[in-house]
Amino acid sequence: MSILVVGSVAYDTVETPFGKAERVLGGSASFFSVAASFFTPVRLVAVVGEDFGEAQLAAFRGRPIDLDGLERTTGKTFHWQGKYSYDLNHRDTVCTDLNVFEFFKPRLPQSYRDVEHVFLGNIDPELQLDVLQQVERPRLVACDTMNFWIGGKPEALRRTLSRVDVLLVNDAEARELSGEWNIVKAARAIRALGPRTLVIKKGEHGVLMFSDAGSFAAPAYPLEDVFDPTGAGDTFAGGFLGYLASSADGGEATLRKAVIMGSALASFCVEAFSLDRLLRLTRPEIDERFRLFKKLTHFEGI
Amino acid sequence: MSILVVGSVAYDTVETPFGKAERVLGGSASFFSVAASFFTPVRLVAVVGEDFGEAQLAAFRGRPIDLDGLERTTGKTFHWQGKYSYDLNHRDTVCTDLNVFEFFKPRLPQSYRDVEHVFLGNIDPELQLDVLQQVERPRLVACDTMNFWIGGKPEALRRTLSRVDVLLVNDAEARELSGEWNIVKAARAIRALGPRTLVIKKGEHGVLMFSDAGSFAAPAYPLEDVFDPTGAGDTFAGGFLGYLASSADGGEATLRKAVIMGSALASFCVEAFSLDRLLRLTRPEIDERFRLFKKLTHFEGI
Repeated sequence: MSILVVGSVAYDTVETPFGKAERVLGGSASFFSVAASFFTPVRLVAVVGEDFGEAQLAAFRGRPIDLDGLERTTGKTFHWQGKYSYDLNHRDTVCTDLNVFEFFKPRLPQSYRDVEHVFLGNIDPELQLDVLQQVERPRLVACDTMNFWIGGKPEALRRTLSRVDVLLVNDAEARELSGEWNIVKAARAIRALGPRTLVIKKGEHGVLMFSDAGSFAAPAYPLEDVFDPTGAGDTFAGGFLGYLASSADGGEATLRKAVIMGSALASFCVEAFSLDRLLRLTRPEIDERFRLFKKLTHFEGI
Repeated sequence: MSILVVGSVAYDTVETPFGKAERVLGGSASFFSVAASFFTPVRLVAVVGEDFGEAQLAAFRGRPIDLDGLERTTGKTFHWQGKYSYDLNHRDTVCTDLNVFEFFKPRLPQSYRDVEHVFLGNIDPELQLDVLQQVERPRLVACDTMNFWIGGKPEALRRTLSRVDVLLVNDAEARELSGEWNIVKAARAIRALGPRTLVIKKGEHGVLMFSDAGSFAAPAYPLEDVFDPTGAGDTFAGGFLGYLASSADGGEATLRKAVIMGSALASFCVEAFSLDRLLRLTRPEIDERFRLFKKLTHFEGI
């Protein structure tokens, strides 16, 4: 079953201790779409400028990614520039040129409205709500957000969350959203706002998922060469929700396998700049890394 | 089979956001001994002052903890005072009164010398070496250390590490010891110094173990009420090595179960001040938490 993603398609300029990439393909919806497309058809809703052409679209071609919802408008494409610390654990935003993204009003093509899975990328919660008005009867709505909206539009965000099944945030965002430092208490408070499933991304420390069945902890894959963390969280979301959308049921066992699939995809994403590693990734490689996660975490009972 | 522990027995004064405990039982060897004693007999080597009497020893009585090596000498017992931040993630040392611990020279009773498992707590690496001269033919030597010795006595520490089978450190210590930021590279560099098994403790983010069989990742148990983290690392070490010493073999499957046992013990330790929770803990409670770790981490294959 297909999944709708609404988010950003952008140019990134990224500097890490290992090199610099200028104006390469980035944006939450780009990483999400390519990651999800390994498992399920994707319908993309985003906006780009006149400087975004067929060369950039090549990343999405030849994959089950529907581009009917990718609006091209007068102006320049969203551009983000960031620089990572020597340990990759901190990054400074050098500049954010919203450009055409500043006036983004997601408009779903008629052909998208019967979609069964929805991922609301990290945009204004009012726009997220507006997207939900445009889909007919989704089986599962997932959502991302950030401190900017948690602090800036708390009421709109709460209205969105009341209609969300799965929320994906990082640990700092979970704490800010709930007002609770303890992550178990934070999870309980957030789930009371609507999302029955909460996925807390902790970067190199892995993922914690809270659902009706309890909690699930998955590590990040211990990698020797982390090259560029940009997009890892969106790639995780794409792998997680893409796998979920491709599965016959959304029960706990499937949710857990989806977390591992998302973690596997993210572990590839950070091996190169932009979507470079994802674009040459194969499904057998993903499945092999899934099995390595099993090896990494397995222990016998007593 | 019994395990020898050399380390500190101390008074701790601890302030957390939830309260303050004055001059309660602490010290690495105290937490270690009680944790390990759930699995195997312990032989304790430490020093206390005249202010440490039968009331304090009560914690060790009624358990398989041999106190013949607990020296009592003129002066006061080691006293540490610390204060935790509101989120328990940082602590400031208010004062460290080494007292009798400043002149600690571990002397093993004759009856200890045939011990098969050794844990060298976090003391001067020259003293750790001295302890190894006093044991006959240990099957397994494990060791803890800290930034003070990594920076201050690097040569002595390297000599100790060349005779160590298992090193337990936290992630910052692993990075400092190896000079590598990436944890996989750090692990390879440290294992080249001697320890075939490296256990990296990451506090609330769990544990990474590197051994001949590869890497193993275990989460910390997501607790709703963390009261006082003091001693959690030493409690982990006690559970880990105590379980290992009690097992017929030291293969990878046993090492992994030992990591979970250590994590289970540590998750109880932080529920109360000092050794309070450990002292009323039962083996069935430990085994039940082990099973909860299984539930927390299990996922099906693809």
